[in-house]
Amino acid sequence: MTVSARRQRLRLRLADAQLDAMLVTDLVNVRYLSGFTGSNAALLILADDDTPVLATDGRYRTQAAAQAPDAEVVIERACGPHLAARAAAAGVRKLGFESHVVTVDAFTALARAAGEQVEFTRAPGAVEALREVKDDGELALLRLACHTADAALQDLVEHGGLRAGRTEKEVRNDLEALMLAHGADGASFETIVATGANSAIPHHRPTDAVLAAGDFVKIDFGALVGGYHSDMTRTFALAPVAQWQRDIYSLVAAAQQAGRDALAPGVPCKDVDAASRQVIADAGYAENFGHGLGHGVGLQIHEAPGINATAAGTLLAGSAVTVEPGVYLPDRGGVRIEDTLAVTPDGPELLTRFGKDLVIL
Amino acid sequence: MTVSARRQRLRLRLADAQLDAMLVTDLVNVRYLSGFTGSNAALLILADDDTPVLATDGRYRTQAAAQAPDAEVVIERACGPHLAARAAAAGVRKLGFESHVVTVDAFTALARAAGEQVEFTRAPGAVEALREVKDDGELALLRLACHTADAALQDLVEHGGLRAGRTEKEVRNDLEALMLAHGADGASFETIVATGANSAIPHHRPTDAVLAAGDFVKIDFGALVGGYHSDMTRTFALAPVAQWQRDIYSLVAAAQQAGRDALAPGVPCKDVDAASRQVIADAGYAENFGHGLGHGVGLQIHEAPGINATAAGTLLAGSAVTVEPGVYLPDRGGVRIEDTLAVTPDGPELLTRFGKDLVIL
Repeated sequence: MTVSARRQRLRLRLADAQLDAMLVTDLVNVRYLSGFTGSNAALLILADDDTPVLATDGRYRTQAAAQAPDAEVVIERACGPHLAARAAAAGVRKLGFESHVVTVDAFTALARAAGEQVEFTRAPGAVEALREVKDDGELALLRLACHTADAALQDLVEHGGLRAGRTEKEVRNDLEALMLAHGADGASFETIVATGANSAIPHHRPTDAVLAAGDFVKIDFGALVGGYHSDMTRTFALAPVAQWQRDIYSLVAAAQQAGRDALAPGVPCKDVDAASRQVIADAGYAENFGHGLGHGVGLQIHEAPGINATAAGTLLAGSAVTVEPGVYLPDRGGVRIEDTLAVTPDGPELLTRFGKDLVIL
Repeated sequence: MTVSARRQRLRLRLADAQLDAMLVTDLVNVRYLSGFTGSNAALLILADDDTPVLATDGRYRTQAAAQAPDAEVVIERACGPHLAARAAAAGVRKLGFESHVVTVDAFTALARAAGEQVEFTRAPGAVEALREVKDDGELALLRLACHTADAALQDLVEHGGLRAGRTEKEVRNDLEALMLAHGADGASFETIVATGANSAIPHHRPTDAVLAAGDFVKIDFGALVGGYHSDMTRTFALAPVAQWQRDIYSLVAAAQQAGRDALAPGVPCKDVDAASRQVIADAGYAENFGHGLGHGVGLQIHEAPGINATAAGTLLAGSAVTVEPGVYLPDRGGVRIEDTLAVTPDGPELLTRFGKDLVIL
């Protein structure tokens, strides 16, 4: 699917909502709908015209023409207000805008530029809702991002990167360098490396703490490729491994399997969370799993849909989501196992393929 | 200076503006005023009470108590609305808010929570204005961040990291790994490595382009340390070097020196830009320097003050700024030389100390 097809989906929604046009100012949404990746831009999409208007500033003249060849590009530093005025001049009466992104001050500038004939209508999340269903090009990039992360972790383990005596930061540094070496544009978020008791902290920042015999080493990381984010967690153990460690590892693995098995189009997101959470609760560890099960992933590391106990949504075919249950025992250690998967009518497609059996190093 | 002293500066400004309180929702500003670094937070500062109220969610209970010991911490997922209601209950009538950060939808939630007795007053940039003057702790972290970047670049050059046959991405990967190895928490922005004709693109993303004899290699990068960002650009040359390369290198170095020499408290920011730009214009290259001269740097990579031809501000003692002129010759190559410096009454303090003579490799 091309960016033109994405815009067509939006234009159908505009018609349904009786909007004449949509002013897109969120940069990720501008990228999704136009292909343009500059840091200052806005996009005007008219319900009855297939050619969008892309505004950006002079730094990006060449880049905009190259990345968004089917858009009309206008060079103007104040992108949003310029397009609001342009919409007014084009006869737009009802103009959708991203009220969840536009600031109070920015809205004042938009309204002033558009004048009194334009009625602004809040359209929060309209583009994000489209982004929830990935097209083929997006799924290809997600596969590549996940594959890159898999390869980096494989290298790290094979080359002895996880061993007693190394620090969390050293492991983080190696893993991030390996992702870059395998072609990633960067890490898709701050890499978590948490050893020993630190592994019981769900979102731990790497420190100079030293990996030691008997530790869990929890690694949550991802690769950024072509704008798309992978997300994966694996928990390793340094020998010797105690029975409580084997027990909670098996438990989390079973809960993660249950969550993956529940992924199908039409399933309420909170039911996916419940399917996994129940496994942990049945074993008596409900209080040791204090976060949601997962989230959508794509052009952002966290996007729709949310998969947690209070989520209102339903899974759609073509969504890409994480499944990441954990059990955390304060001051002892914790396990999280996380994959990124695509939801399909034929069952979930596993995108992060690094093994999930307990690896003892 | 402690976070308490920073808040005291804000409270004096609240009194001047006849505001009863300020609701801080920008996370960088929350960090600046409280020390708390979590990803969901808001801070209420009352003009007549030294104890701020910090709202965050349950994930951060321990962290908030540790990082903001002198704040009253309330655990509440909807941080902003909760504190707006809290302000109303405390009798606040005029409440400043960050209208340049709060979205249209978020403002609706704030106003609803506060009720009709509270009058919201726009206070855009109030905290950012305080942040423009760095205190001793901030300057110490900026020095450390700049030193880390210096050391990484020194290592890269000494170990032959810049040589014909390597790709821009390989150089980027090495440099980022070296920064981490020297203790950085990460890169402070996307590292630019631009070789040959790519060096004429002011903000080029590293590609698989190969460094070749006769190339300029422009590297713009920084280290993130303790929340503070360094920013430095150096341009190297791979032998043999043509006369036009020596000429524009010398020109940019002279322009950069002129910009640094102009840094002093009380000087209009646009005059600093002009002092440097004039050197380039006098040599006939005005059209080849198409961006501003510099910007403030601190908890964000770009912050107040802006240093460019249309800047309205004046330099303050204690500001940390970049000076980064460039000359870009399309399809041939370009040079940018950039330092981060602190503005002091005794002349600028150079924070990025890597040499600026042309290095030919």
